[in-house]
Amino acid sequence: MSRVITLTTDFGLRDPFVGIMKGVILSICPTASLVDLTHDLEPLDILGGCLALEAAVPFFPAGTVHLVVVDPGVGSARRAIALRVGGGYLVGPDNGVLTGALTPALERSGWTAVALTAPEYRLPAVSRTFHGRDIFAPAAAYLAAGVPLERLGPAVTDPVRLSLPGCRFEGDALMGEVLAADRFGNLITSIPAAALETMPGPVSVEVAGVAVGGPMDCYEQGCDGEPAAIVGSTGRIEIFVKGGSARAKLGLQRGAPVRLRSAAVPETFFP
Amino acid sequence: MSRVITLTTDFGLRDPFVGIMKGVILSICPTASLVDLTHDLEPLDILGGCLALEAAVPFFPAGTVHLVVVDPGVGSARRAIALRVGGGYLVGPDNGVLTGALTPALERSGWTAVALTAPEYRLPAVSRTFHGRDIFAPAAAYLAAGVPLERLGPAVTDPVRLSLPGCRFEGDALMGEVLAADRFGNLITSIPAAALETMPGPVSVEVAGVAVGGPMDCYEQGCDGEPAAIVGSTGRIEIFVKGGSARAKLGLQRGAPVRLRSAAVPETFFP
Amino acid sequence: MSRVITLTTDFGLRDPFVGIMKGVILSICPTASLVDLTHDLEPLDILGGCLALEAAVPFFPAGTVHLVVVDPGVGSARRAIALRVGGGYLVGPDNGVLTGALTPALERSGWTAVALTAPEYRLPAVSRTFHGRDIFAPAAAYLAAGVPLERLGPAVTDPVRLSLPGCRFEGDALMGEVLAADRFGNLITSIPAAALETMPGPVSVEVAGVAVGGPMDCYEQGCDGEPAAIVGSTGRIEIFVKGGSARAKLGLQRGAPVRLRSAAVPETFFP
Repeated sequence: MSRVITLTTDFGLRDPFVGIMKGVILSICPTASLVDLTHDLEPLDILGGCLALEAAVPFFPAGTVHLVVVDPGVGSARRAIALRVGGGYLVGPDNGVLTGALTPALERSGWTAVALTAPEYRLPAVSRTFHGRDIFAPAAAYLAAGVPLERLGPAVTDPVRLSLPGCRFEGDALMGEVLAADRFGNLITSIPAAALETMPGPVSVEVAGVAVGGPMDCYEQGCDGEPAAIVGSTGRIEIFVKGGSARAKLGLQRGAPVRLRSAAVPETFFP
Repeated sequence: MSRVITLTTDFGLRDPFVGIMKGVILSICPTASLVDLTHDLEPLDILGGCLALEAAVPFFPAGTVHLVVVDPGVGSARRAIALRVGGGYLVGPDNGVLTGALTPALERSGWTAVALTAPEYRLPAVSRTFHGRDIFAPAAAYLAAGVPLERLGPAVTDPVRLSLPGCRFEGDALMGEVLAADRFGNLITSIPAAALETMPGPVSVEVAGVAVGGPMDCYEQGCDGEPAAIVGSTGRIEIFVKGGSARAKLGLQRGAPVRLRSAAVPETFFP
Repeated sequence: MSRVITLTTDFGLRDPFVGIMKGVILSICPTASLVDLTHDLEPLDILGGCLALEAAVPFFPAGTVHLVVVDPGVGSARRAIALRVGGGYLVGPDNGVLTGALTPALERSGWTAVALTAPEYRLPAVSRTFHGRDIFAPAAAYLAAGVPLERLGPAVTDPVRLSLPGCRFEGDALMGEVLAADRFGNLITSIPAAALETMPGPVSVEVAGVAVGGPMDCYEQGCDGEPAAIVGSTGRIEIFVKGGSARAKLGLQRGAPVRLRSAAVPETFFP
């Protein structure tokens, strides 16, 4: 039996760290298929790791092992954990990066977690600076090779929980926030596309108090240089600028407020 | 049966887009060997995509599927297509990026194209923002898995054609232009090395009116800091600076004129 | 038989050079597992290539082929070589990048080298600008496919030798230097962790005359913003700044002096 293993880190690609983890994996599970999700997370960017997993996990084969190393606490008392969830596995530090990737659907499907303490499933010598190599890569490789999760260590029932920012109704307005920007400068928000369907009639969108166009059906519908909303490829409302960068145009950061309002309901309707 | 699939995009590597496409591919064709050509094309750089394919295609095994996503028109009416050519496949948007990679030799060998419309060879849900994931990656994976091209959709006989800039004789001078610069600052021109052989005796080279050295046989023959011509690894005349960057030294952009002249023919010979 | 092949270059990832080498490899050895160590070495950075190999080689399966192309002399008279050492292979230009990766342990284990001159194990046409594609990738692929090293060309007994900077005692102080910085700004020194064990009692560390903290057991032990020493993941003493960059904080380059002193011995003890 062999499986796909994805790798997500803040290691960058200019040092051999990612390649070294792959050497460890292929030493244990020579037939693993290795796929990089991203290694360009900002150092310590746990939320970014969650978003990468959320976008990617649904598109991988059943049984895929997702290895995530965003690990400011390496070598400290923080636990190393693995979760079995939705037919696949998540492996990484117990700092919320894995639980943040548990969508409501995955939560409902149930999960099992263990602490990665069994010495026979770590490298013989464990450093205090590179657990990606010494603990996480071996765990991912043994899971991909078919070792049962429970063999890797004792059960963990209280992993550090991280909930991604969501959205809420304030009166008739649906309020959320900007979570991240992608390479193209598109702003990814905390508002799921499904929320659009709950709102009657056409919807207007404001970001940090600025009205933007849309929601559009595709990027080509936008007006050159004008910010507009769209249902992004990850199922979240995004803000884009056709032929440009919404991040640059709007000058916004993570946390900027986003407001959707049903245009069918006049603002004065609610006194 | 399984095959190599190459991936060429303008997605960058800081977001999980490329990894997501690989998840889709491995879900459909678990034994595919995945090779990245580049994901750092400038957004919308169709010519850059053509040049990457042109340089790479001859060095891949027969039957390789080359997947290219440079797709400013995603979600609009532009077609998604696949071509069978020279024993392999090209998959991508119908915006010229695939036809631009058809060298004269590939054109002569003949090709067949289809539009990627068959729903059973797309993901069940097709977004309007990420056809790389929903249409192109599945098509490449099914082709790699041995599905006949004709099953993916109806024949296309009029793909959007892009011809890469070439070269022409003006009097005794062979005129071309700069197409791109590589990481080392080498300027890749539109003049094929084969053209050199058609010119009698030694040849002199000018770029944007500036005489440069060479053509040299190897980079070491250059003089430190001095621009010179060389037959580059892709079979095109390139301009390099030993120990430096021709792009920086000459300050040139795509489109800068390049002129080869047979030095055996004195300039005054043509009054 | 098939094997892992690692790739280490200064080619970057914005051009298709690395992908083209992989196409050549998979054409010769379709079942090779390809792992990138790094392609972001500074052009001509032979020492950086050595450090990447040193850190990575111990973590790869027996029989792995490590392909390194940092090759300022491509097309000149410099030799192309391959070494069999420690159950694996090193392939690259004969400019010291391979011998620099020979740790004392590997040296003691013995090695055999050949020049890559046999035409049947090169591409049919060898350019003078891209030996990574035409000579090194084929050699690595044939070795991975099980071709004996000796078939690739005649024995080489005098490869260009590069010794990585080491350390030496001056009185009671162990003197070394900064070799490189990683993505996180950690400064990697020429002092092996093993040297710490030879020094009695606690040790104090100076970099370019500035006292730094540690040696610490893990990054979390550091004080925010303060430089300190640690045993890095590659078995070398490193200088880090918790929550920051030692490179930026100390403003140091390769070659900056590093001094370890046994704190048990008062400085005035030696008059």
